[in-house]
Amino acid sequence: MTHQTQLRDRAAVLDGKDELAAKRQEFVLDDTVYLDGNSLGALPANVEARVADVITREWGKLRIRSWEESGWWTAPERIGDRLAPLLGAAPGQVVVADSTSVNVFKALVAAVRIARGEGGEGEGAERDEIVVDATTFPTDGYIAASAARLTGCRLIPSVPADVPGVLGPRTAAVLLNHADYRSGKLHDLPGLTAAVHAVGALVVWDLCHTAGALPIGLDEHGVDLAVGCTYKYLNGGPGSPAYLYVRKEHQPRFDSPLPGWNSHAEPFGMRADYAPADDAVRGRVGTPDILSLLAFDAALNVWEGVSTAAVRAKSLALTDFFLECVAAYVPEGRVESITPAAHAERGSQIALRCPDAAGVMKRLIERGVVGDYRAPDVLRFGFTPLYVSFADTERAARVLADTLADTLEELPESPPQGA
Amino acid sequence: MTHQTQLRDRAAVLDGKDELAAKRQEFVLDDTVYLDGNSLGALPANVEARVADVITREWGKLRIRSWEESGWWTAPERIGDRLAPLLGAAPGQVVVADSTSVNVFKALVAAVRIARGEGGEGEGAERDEIVVDATTFPTDGYIAASAARLTGCRLIPSVPADVPGVLGPRTAAVLLNHADYRSGKLHDLPGLTAAVHAVGALVVWDLCHTAGALPIGLDEHGVDLAVGCTYKYLNGGPGSPAYLYVRKEHQPRFDSPLPGWNSHAEPFGMRADYAPADDAVRGRVGTPDILSLLAFDAALNVWEGVSTAAVRAKSLALTDFFLECVAAYVPEGRVESITPAAHAERGSQIALRCPDAAGVMKRLIERGVVGDYRAPDVLRFGFTPLYVSFADTERAARVLADTLADTLEELPESPPQGA
Repeated sequence: MTHQTQLRDRAAVLDGKDELAAKRQEFVLDDTVYLDGNSLGALPANVEARVADVITREWGKLRIRSWEESGWWTAPERIGDRLAPLLGAAPGQVVVADSTSVNVFKALVAAVRIARGEGGEGEGAERDEIVVDATTFPTDGYIAASAARLTGCRLIPSVPADVPGVLGPRTAAVLLNHADYRSGKLHDLPGLTAAVHAVGALVVWDLCHTAGALPIGLDEHGVDLAVGCTYKYLNGGPGSPAYLYVRKEHQPRFDSPLPGWNSHAEPFGMRADYAPADDAVRGRVGTPDILSLLAFDAALNVWEGVSTAAVRAKSLALTDFFLECVAAYVPEGRVESITPAAHAERGSQIALRCPDAAGVMKRLIERGVVGDYRAPDVLRFGFTPLYVSFADTERAARVLADTLADTLEELPESPPQGA
Repeated sequence: MTHQTQLRDRAAVLDGKDELAAKRQEFVLDDTVYLDGNSLGALPANVEARVADVITREWGKLRIRSWEESGWWTAPERIGDRLAPLLGAAPGQVVVADSTSVNVFKALVAAVRIARGEGGEGEGAERDEIVVDATTFPTDGYIAASAARLTGCRLIPSVPADVPGVLGPRTAAVLLNHADYRSGKLHDLPGLTAAVHAVGALVVWDLCHTAGALPIGLDEHGVDLAVGCTYKYLNGGPGSPAYLYVRKEHQPRFDSPLPGWNSHAEPFGMRADYAPADDAVRGRVGTPDILSLLAFDAALNVWEGVSTAAVRAKSLALTDFFLECVAAYVPEGRVESITPAAHAERGSQIALRCPDAAGVMKRLIERGVVGDYRAPDVLRFGFTPLYVSFADTERAARVLADTLADTLEELPESPPQGA
C-alpha cells in the first residue's frame, strides 16, 4: 500500500502541473477510465449541437442551397487545411474523404504511377515492386495486394526495420505504418522516408495510430503521400472520414485510380472528358459525407491552442507512468510489455502481453477501465493526452493488478463445466 | 384565369385522393415548393432525434462498445437489407457504404473479372471491352475509364439505345444509368440487361435517379450488379453513403478491387491473408461512416407501408400534371420538355430546355420554387411522391410562367451595364 499512496500522490502532482488538463472539460466523459481512444476517440462536447444545426438548419431548411451557402462542397479541403497543422503540413495538401482503406488505394496506385513516370518521361517504367509493412494493420496489406495486382507489381512484405534492405531500382512504392497497431512501436518516419527516396521510390505513410498523438512533420521529412483515419486520437466519431495528404510537388502528377467527379477541375461542367483539379482536391472522389465530415470539423475545435509538442510530452509522461505503475502493482511475470521502452520508438499506447487477454479485458471493462484486446494475447491501452489524466493512469494499473489477482484466486473455484 | 381556377381545382381533387398524402407530415417542409429531391431529398422529421441519440448515447456513453452493442459493425448490411425491397432485391445482396463513384469502381472491376472467369475456368479471358452510357452522369464515365485502364480493357461509350449494337464476344461489362440525369429519360432495364446477358457479359446499373421513385426489380430482371446514392429520392441526407447490390449467384466470384478489412470473412482475426466474406459483405471496404449511415437508417422509416407501385403511380400523375400545367400557363415556345412523354420512358423528373436556364432557375428559387439547373440550358424539376403535392406542382408551373413573363418585360428595362 505504500506504493499505492506514493503513486497516487505522484499522479495528483502530475495532474496539477499538466498544461493540457483543462482540455478534459471539452469532452463528454464519465467515471470510467477510457483508454481506448486509440480505437474510438471520446465525444467532444460541442459535436452534438453542431450536427443538430447541420441537420435542422443546413439540411432541413436550406436544403440544396447548403452545398454552396453552408460551404458543404468545399468541406473536404477546408477541413483538410484545419487538420494539416496536426500532420505538419502546409495548407492545400490534405483532403478529408472516404475511408482509410480507400485512401490507401488511391495513394498507392498514384505513387506507383508517379514512380514510373507515367504521363511524364517514363524513366521509371521498369519499377514493379510495392513494399508493404509485414506487420501492418491487415487492411493496408489487402489493399496493397490489390494495388499491386492492378498495376502489375509484385508485393514485397517486410518488417519495417528490414525495409531498407529490400529496396532497390525496381521499387515503385512503399506503404508503412507510423506506429504498429498491436505493439504501439513507433517507426522511424524520417529515416525510412529517406531510404525510400534514396532508391527513387515513393513512400505512403499510414498515420492512423499517430496523428493527434505526436508531431508528424510530413512536410519537414519529405513524405510523399500519407493517409489516416480521424476517429482515433482525432476524435471525429465512429467511422468519420479519413484523410489523404499529397505533397505539393507531387500534385501535378497525382493520377488517381478513383477519378470521381469531385476531383474534376470543373465538377459542375458535367464534361465527358476528365480533367483533374490542380491541387489536393484531385484526391477527392464522390460526394462528401456531410454529417460525418462536419462532426469531425466540430471535433477539431478541441485542438485550439494545443501544440503537438505538448501532446507528445504528456503522452510519453502518461505511458512512462503507466509502465511504472504496472511494474509496481502487477506481480512479476503476469504481463509483459511489448511496447518499446525507448521514447523514440513509442507511440501513444502500451500493449501488454497477457494469458487470457480477452477474458482479462472483459473484466477490466466491467470494473470501469476500458482498453481493448487484439488477438491472440495483447491488452491495448491507448493514452489520449487531451482527456486522460495521470490519476486515470494510476487507477488503470491498479485495477489491472486487482483483476489479475482475482483471476488467480478465481481459477480453482470455477473449473470449466463440460468440454 | 379560367385555366388557373380549373387546374387549382384539379390539384385539390388529386391531393384529396392521394393515398400517399399523409407521408408529407413525416418530412420537415416549409412554404417553398421543393422540386429538388432528385438532388437532395428533404429532411425526414425523425432523423435529428436519432442522430442525437447516436452521438450522445451510442458514441458519447457507450463509446467503443457500440460497435457491437449498438449494432454499428453490421449496419452496412442490415441497412442494405432494409433498402433492398425498394430495389426489388431479396435480403443478403445489398450493402450501404462508400460513395456511388467508389461503388461503381468496385462493381465494374468485379464485373470484368467475373466475365473473364478470373479465379475460375478462365473461358472469358479474351473479353476486353467495357461499354459505358455515353450520356452518363460524368463520374460514371471517369470511373469506367479508370476501371478499363486498370483491367486492360477498351472503353466504348454508347448511348443506351445503341448499346445492343456495340455488344459482342469481347464485351466484359456494361455500365448503364437507369434514368438520364439531365433529361429524366428512363432506360429499358429489363431489355438492356437481357441484351448484355445474351453476349455473356455483365451489366452494372446506376440507380441514383430511380431508386425511391419507381419499382426497380433487380432480382426479377436478372441484374448482375447495381449501385446508387441514398441522398436523392431516398432522403438519406447530404452525401449519405451509397449502396452496392451484388446478385446472390455472383457473390462467390465477386472479387473486389477494394478488399478492405471490412470485407474479410473474419475481420477481427487480423490475418495477413485475405479471405473474403461469403455474401454481400464482401462489397464493404473500410470502417463504416456511422453518423451518416444511421441518419439514412432513420430516413428509411418513411417507407413504412409504402409500395413502390403507389410511388410510381403518383410520380407519373405528378409529372403528367406538371406538363399539363406548363402547357396551360407557359406561352408556346418559351420552354421545351426534353423528358419523354411516354410513361415507360419517364423517370420522376421533368427537364425543360429554356434560354438563360441558370438565370430563370435563380429567379424561380427567389420566388419559392426550388429546382435546379444543368448546363447548358436545362431546368430540372424532381417530383418526390412522398412529399410533393399536386398543389405544389400547379404552383411551380404557375410561378415558372410568371417568371418567364416578367423576364420578357424586364429585359428592355434593364440592359446590361458595361461589357
